[in-house]
Amino acid sequence: MQLFYNAELTGNTSLFSFDSAESKHIVKVLRRKINDELLITNGKGLMLSAKIIDDNPKKCSVEVTGIKKVHPQKHWLHMVVAPTKMNDRFEWFLEKATEIGVNEITPVICQRSERKTIKLERYNKVILSAMKQSFQAYLPKLNDLIPLDEFLEKPAEGSLFIAHCENMEKYELKRSVIPDSPTTILIGPEGDFSTAEIKKAISKGYMPVSMGKNRLRTETAAIVACTTVAMINNG
Amino acid sequence: MQLFYNAELTGNTSLFSFDSAESKHIVKVLRRKINDELLITNGKGLMLSAKIIDDNPKKCSVEVTGIKKVHPQKHWLHMVVAPTKMNDRFEWFLEKATEIGVNEITPVICQRSERKTIKLERYNKVILSAMKQSFQAYLPKLNDLIPLDEFLEKPAEGSLFIAHCENMEKYELKRSVIPDSPTTILIGPEGDFSTAEIKKAISKGYMPVSMGKNRLRTETAAIVACTTVAMINNG
Repeated sequence: MQLFYNAELTGNTSLFSFDSAESKHIVKVLRRKINDELLITNGKGLMLSAKIIDDNPKKCSVEVTGIKKVHPQKHWLHMVVAPTKMNDRFEWFLEKATEIGVNEITPVICQRSERKTIKLERYNKVILSAMKQSFQAYLPKLNDLIPLDEFLEKPAEGSLFIAHCENMEKYELKRSVIPDSPTTILIGPEGDFSTAEIKKAISKGYMPVSMGKNRLRTETAAIVACTTVAMINNG
Repeated sequence: MQLFYNAELTGNTSLFSFDSAESKHIVKVLRRKINDELLITNGKGLMLSAKIIDDNPKKCSVEVTGIKKVHPQKHWLHMVVAPTKMNDRFEWFLEKATEIGVNEITPVICQRSERKTIKLERYNKVILSAMKQSFQAYLPKLNDLIPLDEFLEKPAEGSLFIAHCENMEKYELKRSVIPDSPTTILIGPEGDFSTAEIKKAISKGYMPVSMGKNRLRTETAAIVACTTVAMINNG
């Protein structure tokens, strides 16, 4: 079973066509034919079943046969993560976070960041592919790279956490997440947040947290944080 | 801070030398010199601090200056996972499981496995590197590839789980893990376990479990399982 994506779909759509790339994929690669059923999401909570009425590999058209609204989860997990030096490690994080559950991702530049540029379009593709793969109706929102200092000036609601490795009093993330509540978690670069960054985040209402005693890589810490929030919120 | 590895170390070691590869790494790559302090584990619970007394890049020798015994955790997590079709996804699992916490890993061949060979030596390197990176004193045990049917004939103790996607009554893993107790978790290949495999595992005492509602890739399911067990056991 496969999930397709079309951002333009609404609850009123009855007929529509895929763009040329998705059409080619459906007709040429997956060899779907007239009357085959497809499952499609708009990434905003709608799941539509549809039947192919024209298997044109440049413009595959379908007729909507059913529609389901997937309710959003009550919590909103916003992961704010310093991109890793090795780009593939950050892409792993994007893929795994999407599979496990994340609503919004903001890459941030920190004082000790070695990577200061990202490939936003490529990252969006990774997230989209992971959403389809894991059969979800909501596409996580990816924001553009922003300096941490600037991010911390923005208003934020719900529970705010900063995971760092400095030796100071910290709470355990798993005991601090509040179910059904918006949650923002900051994860630093390979060299950790600077003391000044940690102090500033705390002054802005971020609670310092730890996630166990092992020293985790940036992308591992981010995945453990997503899993922790998912576990506390799912059932 | 870096952690080094030498499997030969015991509580009685007072002087020893690294092999040529590790010596070259310490002296040539990391440019450590006479009198520099190193932290070394034997992967079996010992953490030794030691001082370089000969910075020979072919045979770096050290004198032990301190020794610490890290107590093993009471639980023993054994992950039994079908290697993924793409090898890098399985290596990613090995790295992340080691960082997050795992004691033993057995790759298994299932009915729907597409990959039927593994690179044991390469996998051991990934695990060793992740152990050093995450500053742990225990090296996870990696077993050789074995057919699932054969694995299921072996005696197993503690809590036994099989995570699968078939539509049948399942328990939630997070509510089923018993703290401080040995735990074995089976994770299937891309196409999932077959019904026959699931039935056989259940007949051997494995409890069918789910890990939330998202459809997870093999390596993601395995990491979510490790994180769940770590969260329940750490404090």
